[in-house]
Amino acid sequence: MTDFAADPSHPRYGSLLLRHKLELAAEKGMLAGSALIAHGRGEAFDYLIGEQTSTFASEAIDAALHALVHAQQPIICVNGNVAGLAGEEILRLATLLGCPVEINIFYRTEQRMEAIYHHLDSIRTKSQFEVNILGREPNSRIPNLEGPRAMCEKDGILNSDVILVPLEDGDRCEALRAMGKTVIVIDLNPLSRSSQKASITIVDELTRCISEMCHRLKHQSFNHTHQVWDNTANLDGSLDLIRHGMKH
Amino acid sequence: MTDFAADPSHPRYGSLLLRHKLELAAEKGMLAGSALIAHGRGEAFDYLIGEQTSTFASEAIDAALHALVHAQQPIICVNGNVAGLAGEEILRLATLLGCPVEINIFYRTEQRMEAIYHHLDSIRTKSQFEVNILGREPNSRIPNLEGPRAMCEKDGILNSDVILVPLEDGDRCEALRAMGKTVIVIDLNPLSRSSQKASITIVDELTRCISEMCHRLKHQSFNHTHQVWDNTANLDGSLDLIRHGMKH
Repeated sequence: MTDFAADPSHPRYGSLLLRHKLELAAEKGMLAGSALIAHGRGEAFDYLIGEQTSTFASEAIDAALHALVHAQQPIICVNGNVAGLAGEEILRLATLLGCPVEINIFYRTEQRMEAIYHHLDSIRTKSQFEVNILGREPNSRIPNLEGPRAMCEKDGILNSDVILVPLEDGDRCEALRAMGKTVIVIDLNPLSRSSQKASITIVDELTRCISEMCHRLKHQSFNHTHQVWDNTANLDGSLDLIRHGMKH
Repeated sequence: MTDFAADPSHPRYGSLLLRHKLELAAEKGMLAGSALIAHGRGEAFDYLIGEQTSTFASEAIDAALHALVHAQQPIICVNGNVAGLAGEEILRLATLLGCPVEINIFYRTEQRMEAIYHHLDSIRTKSQFEVNILGREPNSRIPNLEGPRAMCEKDGILNSDVILVPLEDGDRCEALRAMGKTVIVIDLNPLSRSSQKASITIVDELTRCISEMCHRLKHQSFNHTHQVWDNTANLDGSLDLIRHGMKH
């Protein structure tokens, strides 16, 4: 499996392309065993959402951009799935925000860390993005979180005030919130623990969402005025949308 | 990855055990690249259904058992996911029904066929099931279906009248229906093409469903009287259940 031969006119082209990217990431050793299963769960929710950025997701993107642009020390935190699916979009967003990217994975092994780093580094070189990629030399820990997934960098995750963590796990999301950070997650399941625990949850597919964030940042086409964000109300809107999508 | 160490008291034990079984199946070369993603999609729907056999699924199981027990030539058709997740349950059900099992896979390769056959054969030997396992020497084709997935055995799928095909693909389901067969599918997504095209759709998780079918057959505890089956009404019931499950 190296070439991707699907016709762009295929009705499932976008979905097939993402699967292909994940298969390549798996070949590079970037993914844990559960990564493809997690992707499948996301596919099911995206299918129910209608495979487009909803008005609720769009509002959440605005709120997320507002928080990131006004942050003292923003950061984007990635795992193997995120790097494999949206490595280029993530580095572009980090360039636009002028912030670092930190690799932080649930099932940490040095081999997987290196595979993810080299994947991102090759995109950075190719596209000439000037972004710091952290995570390989952790010198700190996220408090109240056990195991290797707590490892992080002091000048990265630890001291950040606003953190964008696509596809986060619920425990870590909670631990980051407990540190007083604004945590923005991108998660297709509005009922997941991460979605419920985040400061701002964008219920949208990762690559679509990050591309849209880059577009709005580049064109400065997002709401710059601060509004109180009601994450629960926004999640309820996404849930209603899914319920509606389940009608024949 | 060989041992499965999760504690049975873990709230996600059942789900983790199925993942482990799939990982073993992948190691044995039984699965296509998309198998884990498909499993993840199922996980999402099972989560929304509440991870239990619903009353709608229970009614569909009754209708399915009635059709299988009264068939002239019933058959159970399996792919790599089905064999990996529920090989033992499938062979037990085939023993109780006195019918053969036919391996029939979407992305057919001889290597994968052999891996699935040997997996099932080892369970058959270990548990002393007297079941014919077909599919390795196809001598016929399902009409109106292109490619290797149409290959089947004359005394198996081709001449069967009632066919249980868990996790079927939509095209093949349609082609089998066009042959005049009663097609029973087990699919967690009530909106999938297979679910919509089948004669009887059981919206339930595979291992839970097959275990329940075996239990009812063994104890003869299912409805023996023939009733007209309204698959659309039953699917609508499952859809309502999912919509209801999405409320906070």
